[in-house]
Amino acid sequence: MPGKLILIGCGPGSGDLLTLRAAKRIFDADLVLYDRLISEDVLEHAGPNTLCVYVGKGSGDGGVQQADINLRIYDALCAGLVVARLKSGDPMIFGRAAEELAIAEAVGACIEIVPGVTAALAAAADARIAVTERREIQHFIVTTGRSADDNNALDWESLAKPGTCIAFYMGVAQAWRIQSKLMAAGVPGDASADWIERAGQSSSRTVSTTVDQIARAVAEQQVSNPAILMVRYPLSLAEAPARAVRASLFAS
Amino acid sequence: MPGKLILIGCGPGSGDLLTLRAAKRIFDADLVLYDRLISEDVLEHAGPNTLCVYVGKGSGDGGVQQADINLRIYDALCAGLVVARLKSGDPMIFGRAAEELAIAEAVGACIEIVPGVTAALAAAADARIAVTERREIQHFIVTTGRSADDNNALDWESLAKPGTCIAFYMGVAQAWRIQSKLMAAGVPGDASADWIERAGQSSSRTVSTTVDQIARAVAEQQVSNPAILMVRYPLSLAEAPARAVRASLFAS
Repeated sequence: MPGKLILIGCGPGSGDLLTLRAAKRIFDADLVLYDRLISEDVLEHAGPNTLCVYVGKGSGDGGVQQADINLRIYDALCAGLVVARLKSGDPMIFGRAAEELAIAEAVGACIEIVPGVTAALAAAADARIAVTERREIQHFIVTTGRSADDNNALDWESLAKPGTCIAFYMGVAQAWRIQSKLMAAGVPGDASADWIERAGQSSSRTVSTTVDQIARAVAEQQVSNPAILMVRYPLSLAEAPARAVRASLFAS
Repeated sequence: MPGKLILIGCGPGSGDLLTLRAAKRIFDADLVLYDRLISEDVLEHAGPNTLCVYVGKGSGDGGVQQADINLRIYDALCAGLVVARLKSGDPMIFGRAAEELAIAEAVGACIEIVPGVTAALAAAADARIAVTERREIQHFIVTTGRSADDNNALDWESLAKPGTCIAFYMGVAQAWRIQSKLMAAGVPGDASADWIERAGQSSSRTVSTTVDQIARAVAEQQVSNPAILMVRYPLSLAEAPARAVRASLFAS
């Protein structure tokens, strides 16, 4: 009998943003695989028969490779174990879930996915930013602002429309690029932009700025990862210049 | 001393998608205000000194009005109480948080926001849909597909670009409109579209279809609220016709 693979969203780095369902699944698991973004508090939910194994991928420091993680999942599922694969945030947003789910499918194991609090919403809570707003923000967009593939460059014109709030994940290293692309696509320089470091954690910090100062804020305030950049371009901001023109016409 | 207002995201309708932090805040609160989308399991976390009050807005059935909720929050904060305002999903996505936060600011009360699992991510977990995917899905977009204001009609052309996954909240009643707008904006009829009813709950149901059958699926499968529509338009689907053309050229 093949085992069961559970992909578990553990929220963004703070142990108490774990859901009750996630805590229960961790307790019941035979094997827990976690990486470096998972808080130690999360592992405290492991049950007496749960083995917790660190599978953090290092950035060039000889950390565990995805192929090794895949093999470990494969072996455990074939042995009939319940494997809890912990993901920071939510497993379906930048979680690279597909590869690990394919293993479970290949061996005929059961699959369960436990959703989690994604970093952008923890950031919105910390910075008190409503990511949708009646009459102002129609769409909430989650992106990295990057393309894996030069042939499919990001369509910034579509992204940067009035009535949107955009959460950029992993944006610190390309702050200048995001700023210049947004402005070239027509986002006003005075639209609000907030960097939220360590969203959801007690040490969370918000650096509030505007689109024309996105990169400068990183340099001056030494914004570092993990951080979310939240850009808000409400409908009324797009109308503002037109309003100013109308006002000046009436004034003359 | 004015009290404290805590907006708490309770996740999408299943009590065990509550976070540990939310459960603790509910336990410690003096007053809990909840509406009809909040599961009864959630209220079981209330402490011995917590008063739970139902403030569900009815749709035309004489339910509590927002003005009454606001007044109740105002009175409780002025009396120095800790008020936990429960929101289904996450409070910053379609949570209409602004009005209630303004009351807390007006009386000088403390504010805390506890993020939650939003319905779209519970839907993605239930239907096993990765809302981002390397080389395929660059943006994840959350929207209602509606505009509050006829002067600011939704820009469907921008929404419906290759490389996006779109989660439509509250879409059942306008299934035909979403389908026709997406197709008019160039989304291929064979792009995948999944209706997920009661996301995150044990009674969750996924109806998998394609963009050209969005409305038909609602009629034939009697999809009803609460439901999320998840539309996936990967980059490779946009390339498919070009590939087909190239293939036919080589074949001839």
